[in-house]
Amino acid sequence: MKDILHRVGIKSVSLDDVYDAVTTLDGLAGWWTTDTTGITDLGGVIKFRFGPAGGFDMKVVELNPAKQVVWEVVDGPEEWIGTTVRWELKQEDDFTIILFSHEGWQDAVEFMHHCSTRWATYLLSLKQFVETGTGAPHPDEVEVSNWT
Amino acid sequence: MKDILHRVGIKSVSLDDVYDAVTTLDGLAGWWTTDTTGITDLGGVIKFRFGPAGGFDMKVVELNPAKQVVWEVVDGPEEWIGTTVRWELKQEDDFTIILFSHEGWQDAVEFMHHCSTRWATYLLSLKQFVETGTGAPHPDEVEVSNWT
Repeated sequence: MKDILHRVGIKSVSLDDVYDAVTTLDGLAGWWTTDTTGITDLGGVIKFRFGPAGGFDMKVVELNPAKQVVWEVVDGPEEWIGTTVRWELKQEDDFTIILFSHEGWQDAVEFMHHCSTRWATYLLSLKQFVETGTGAPHPDEVEVSNWT
Repeated sequence: MKDILHRVGIKSVSLDDVYDAVTTLDGLAGWWTTDTTGITDLGGVIKFRFGPAGGFDMKVVELNPAKQVVWEVVDGPEEWIGTTVRWELKQEDDFTIILFSHEGWQDAVEFMHHCSTRWATYLLSLKQFVETGTGAPHPDEVEVSNWT
């Protein structure tokens, strides 16, 4: 099994702002995709859509306020189904640190390389969203390649 | 062993521009760090420095024009020594695609999470450098966290 890993630090005196940004529809729509719907409670399924490219359905399997959030991918691209997205949060000085992992890829395929870079851009969008109030969610995300 | 993976696509009708940007001192200084010195020939050691944070010495172990470049990390942070940085290049339509990997990490430590996000920002700096002539190398890189 292969994992995508990232670490970002967001200028925020409280973990709560970052926790809200990954656990509410308004928060998620502010940095990942504006087309975010579904149920964000424990056991609920959140639907993230990216226009013609499709999207992902994530089941919320852990909600540990201001510490950890875990999603299981229940629908989306074949390579994603059954993988796990984990958000670990901690405070260091004036930064909320996110240790992010997208775990359980079967193979290090080209699409996994793409998703790793893409996650980095969305995590920086999340940082910008919490720090300034404005992120760069789909359809306004940064272009990374011919796969957009 | 754990690997950092990324994929970026650079608008360029020829692989050569991207190959030059990862195999010449002027190219590397344009997107990674302005303090780049050393020998870029096969078997040479390139020294990348980031001010007080130190840096990395990379031995060039493969130079396959416009196809693949491989570096072995011979000095730098303990976690990096002995790891391998691999650049695979290919052309798709008007994009030069980079499949990047930083291979052979012993453990998925927090520093590896950080380096994965950092590589993404430098790869996007490389994209910007080739597409526009101006990248965002150290000391002008994008901030990703309290670790800068």
